[in-house]
Amino acid sequence: MLTLPTYDDVVAAAGRIEGHAHKTPVLTSRTVNEEFGAEVFFKCENFQRMGAFKFRGAFNALSRFSAEQRKAGVVAFSSGNHAQAVALSAKLLGIPATIVMPHDAPAAKVAATKGYGGNVVVYDRYKEDREQIGRSLAEKHGQNLIPPYDHPDVISGQGTAAKELFEEISELDAFFVPLGGGGLLSGSALSTRALSPGCRLFGVEPEAGNDGQQSLRSGSIVHIDTPKTIADGAQTQHLGNYTFPIIRRDVNDVLTVSDAELVECMAFMAGRMKTVVEPTGCLSFAAARQRKAELKGMRIGVLISGGNVDLARFASLVSA
Amino acid sequence: MLTLPTYDDVVAAAGRIEGHAHKTPVLTSRTVNEEFGAEVFFKCENFQRMGAFKFRGAFNALSRFSAEQRKAGVVAFSSGNHAQAVALSAKLLGIPATIVMPHDAPAAKVAATKGYGGNVVVYDRYKEDREQIGRSLAEKHGQNLIPPYDHPDVISGQGTAAKELFEEISELDAFFVPLGGGGLLSGSALSTRALSPGCRLFGVEPEAGNDGQQSLRSGSIVHIDTPKTIADGAQTQHLGNYTFPIIRRDVNDVLTVSDAELVECMAFMAGRMKTVVEPTGCLSFAAARQRKAELKGMRIGVLISGGNVDLARFASLVSA
Repeated sequence: MLTLPTYDDVVAAAGRIEGHAHKTPVLTSRTVNEEFGAEVFFKCENFQRMGAFKFRGAFNALSRFSAEQRKAGVVAFSSGNHAQAVALSAKLLGIPATIVMPHDAPAAKVAATKGYGGNVVVYDRYKEDREQIGRSLAEKHGQNLIPPYDHPDVISGQGTAAKELFEEISELDAFFVPLGGGGLLSGSALSTRALSPGCRLFGVEPEAGNDGQQSLRSGSIVHIDTPKTIADGAQTQHLGNYTFPIIRRDVNDVLTVSDAELVECMAFMAGRMKTVVEPTGCLSFAAARQRKAELKGMRIGVLISGGNVDLARFASLVSA
Repeated sequence: MLTLPTYDDVVAAAGRIEGHAHKTPVLTSRTVNEEFGAEVFFKCENFQRMGAFKFRGAFNALSRFSAEQRKAGVVAFSSGNHAQAVALSAKLLGIPATIVMPHDAPAAKVAATKGYGGNVVVYDRYKEDREQIGRSLAEKHGQNLIPPYDHPDVISGQGTAAKELFEEISELDAFFVPLGGGGLLSGSALSTRALSPGCRLFGVEPEAGNDGQQSLRSGSIVHIDTPKTIADGAQTQHLGNYTFPIIRRDVNDVLTVSDAELVECMAFMAGRMKTVVEPTGCLSFAAARQRKAELKGMRIGVLISGGNVDLARFASLVSA
């Protein structure tokens, strides 16, 4: 029987990351509020250190390492942002880091991970199992593996973003959060149920990778093939043993959006809100936009998860 | 003898625009601070309403109109952001607006001006005199002309951005501000001398259009041909009768940067700071970067003036 993290763990994580993670800004847009006929609050984790919320969970997890664990080092597998988050946190805490990344990860994410001093090991996303590679590396060198989402300390760390949002703008009627493996969504759920218990909470996946939606509806974790979507941070194949029970208990529904809707939101956020968001980071806004007719008069939270996208790719997407 | 605006006028302007203009965020970047070996504070007017600081001056000027003036309407000439600022302010205050814009103004700026209900009149930037066109339109219809920079109420309004910056982060050692016709720089000078008197204040122009630098050094207003530069907001031909004496009195120096330096800063701010800045908006950051060796250990302000750039043009610039 797993012991699930609670809101108390989120509070403890907030104490650990204070002074290391940014307290990210909450942006609003009159244009969006007029379009929705509602008040929309964007919690902008694209302004987080290394460009995504992932720093919160990684730093929280690594700062709980014992002296011996710190010396041995850390291994992580990730499609991108978790890799950078572990590499940067490890650098800040003086821990050696090995990162297992897919061969087709965005060049900017690979470069940034190496830039933070991480030792990068590459695998084929469509043929090899990154968890196995990560586990065998960890065993071989006696290192600790920090998975990208299915870990209580990672979940608690990710929950600190929603905690900051509610503390800054108080309660919400509806809250939209990107969903990959569920670290951000389950952490956000802990904070939402503690700080805004009546708020309807939605996870948002790319259409091509709706394993979370399937899991929530079937009542057990559904595994899918690696989905093909521009939302590279949500190309996960299944929820986790920690994240799924929290999502099942605390999340109202899981929604999906198309890649075309993500591109439209990226262009809107760059053109009108002057902020660079990666495709995965727009999942939440795209879903809220899809349902804006049902949200009239409400207070709506939109968690923007990250902004790490190759500039050339970003440029070709938003100007197409 | 002209009566120059003072810091008291900036304070009065701040009262008028409160609740209408955004109090824009001050962003910081650990990457930038490490690169500079200094503390750099970005006052981000690209997050201002209509995407640039110009809203401050236009709204301040228009809100001082008498009932009769409001009924007659306003005329403005502008390469872009001032046009949108006057159109939006006029719409909010219920004043009819006619905007004289160059034929090659960015499409996004023309579209936005029309979107705010402004009546757009087009002229040839390289052949016709926009001031003459604006003045004859104003006379013909008994309307008031609000120039883009050389007006005490415009200057006082623009000064509110620097006022907010100093009130939020206290005094600075050096402060870099984009310079076109000098509305933003002279307004910033009033706030700087009142709130951080020891701060060294720099205006920054594109290399191709260094009329401000020439004017400061020669002691009188120098006129140049319309400069060819990607910084379309700084394609002014001369400082103004109000802006020049303030700049001469309160500004330490005027610096210049190349278009290539502007593009580098745009790409950096999009890629690392996740924020969309127009070429003119990067003048300040580019100049600070150029001189970072002299700024070690200092507290530095960088005023980012706006973010209004066609997405396709932005994309082609940052991904080149």
